[in-house]
Amino acid sequence: MIPAQNQEDNSTIDQPPTQPHSMNVAFQGVSGAFSEEAVYTYFEQDMGQPIQKYSYQSFADVFAAVAKGSVAYGVVPLENSQTGSIDEVYDLLASYDLFVVGEVCVPVNQCLMCLPGQRLSDIKRVFSHPQALAQCKEYLGKLAVEVNTASNTAASAKMIQEAHLENTAAIAGPRAAELYQLEILAQNIQTVKENYTRFLVLGKTQGPYSDQQSKTMLAITMARQSLALSHYLTVFAAHGLQLVRVETRPSRQQPWETIYFVEIAGHSEDPKVRCALNDVATYTSMCKLLGSFQRAV
Amino acid sequence: MIPAQNQEDNSTIDQPPTQPHSMNVAFQGVSGAFSEEAVYTYFEQDMGQPIQKYSYQSFADVFAAVAKGSVAYGVVPLENSQTGSIDEVYDLLASYDLFVVGEVCVPVNQCLMCLPGQRLSDIKRVFSHPQALAQCKEYLGKLAVEVNTASNTAASAKMIQEAHLENTAAIAGPRAAELYQLEILAQNIQTVKENYTRFLVLGKTQGPYSDQQSKTMLAITMARQSLALSHYLTVFAAHGLQLVRVETRPSRQQPWETIYFVEIAGHSEDPKVRCALNDVATYTSMCKLLGSFQRAV
Repeated sequence: MIPAQNQEDNSTIDQPPTQPHSMNVAFQGVSGAFSEEAVYTYFEQDMGQPIQKYSYQSFADVFAAVAKGSVAYGVVPLENSQTGSIDEVYDLLASYDLFVVGEVCVPVNQCLMCLPGQRLSDIKRVFSHPQALAQCKEYLGKLAVEVNTASNTAASAKMIQEAHLENTAAIAGPRAAELYQLEILAQNIQTVKENYTRFLVLGKTQGPYSDQQSKTMLAITMARQSLALSHYLTVFAAHGLQLVRVETRPSRQQPWETIYFVEIAGHSEDPKVRCALNDVATYTSMCKLLGSFQRAV
Repeated sequence: MIPAQNQEDNSTIDQPPTQPHSMNVAFQGVSGAFSEEAVYTYFEQDMGQPIQKYSYQSFADVFAAVAKGSVAYGVVPLENSQTGSIDEVYDLLASYDLFVVGEVCVPVNQCLMCLPGQRLSDIKRVFSHPQALAQCKEYLGKLAVEVNTASNTAASAKMIQEAHLENTAAIAGPRAAELYQLEILAQNIQTVKENYTRFLVLGKTQGPYSDQQSKTMLAITMARQSLALSHYLTVFAAHGLQLVRVETRPSRQQPWETIYFVEIAGHSEDPKVRCALNDVATYTSMCKLLGSFQRAV
């Protein structure tokens, strides 16, 4: 693989609003990226809520935009079913005082796309994000093409359109093909067909209460050798709460001090969850409520 | 940052042995890398055991060398106190049938080094691994130098010696300076001074039993929505076993199926641990014993 030659356009799609507006939503990347698809799925498709989408260059920029109130919500990927957690997003969750108000799972459908009229036999070069290239390694192995990395899947599609690159294909989601008027040569070309990315929706305040299918996310900081880890994990079971997921990241404050990101079934306003959180507080002073939200299907 | 210009020598230090030898040890990287320091600390310094060190290009190569019996042991980094877990090593632990027989923590001491006789004011370019550059970002910000990435800290030191590069410095550990006859201009230049990397020692069979300061590592695979996570974590507490660490990785077999890497206090031959493992087996059929070993200081 050789580095991508293009300098991508990472500017925002629209001018960022100067006044906060209830339905401005931030995402990272360029239009047509899987993050934008997550925004579309969560707000427009599932909630029927028309929104204004604003693209930012980095995950940190999305967090900052929500914290400053430039946008009402931010959407960031947390984990992929195949490649695992996105550490940077976990670290940002710990350092910003934002709330997780929702989640959405987007199926990854990697497509090979090119300028209209080109055939598969015309393709000499393929551009995409390293992770997408890795996911499609088996498929690419069968084509005799040069493989090049780009910083974003949709950006590689955009580049092909803008520079009118013949004999060149991008690997990106179907939304990128639609946006940049490219033709899809092959669909679902990733090796593991069932592949999903889970995104979180971030806001400045807690989301509305729901006693149906809620989940609560916590960040609990503790020293490596402390007994607290054994204790607090039993607290949830003692209150009959299902532990859905545990992820860890170093706290970066003290060597080996760890932040456990815990997801449990139930809303933080549910009596059982409130009692469990009170009990956990007796074992650690560093338990941060990241939010309660509706579980994604 | 621009990509490194050099093609590094990733060949083994000595010819890999054709016959297994009890004290051949594999590590990833070139001589002088922190992994080699871990080998030295664990076997020579702590155990007074003279060994033959063999360098391999990738973590997967180290696992394969131990599995094939080309070496008796392999040493791989598992996590850094600042940057967190090394996902690739966790994934390899799950896919190979090897045992963890020891662990060692190596303090990270990033040094700026150059050809003898050069002064700090002579340095125009700095080479190192992206993670080392990130750790020393604050220090580098104060120098007016061009920053370049290399695939390994020690490899950048080696390159300076071999190409006799003036006006150039590498960031690497003190062992690299010694090996490649470079002069250390500054020590401990990483932003967070207390920074450690934990390495695992891998073997083909379980390590010897010890009832002192032992730790047991398990890999437990389960579906995301299963209740088993709550259950098995309480099992350890119910048997009075301290949970030292929990790390997660996707199993890559089924979407959202997760492998929990659990470290608990005690040896797998201890009665309490044996009972707990039996109980865990009632909740999940996918509990793999990765090994019991002496806890690092």
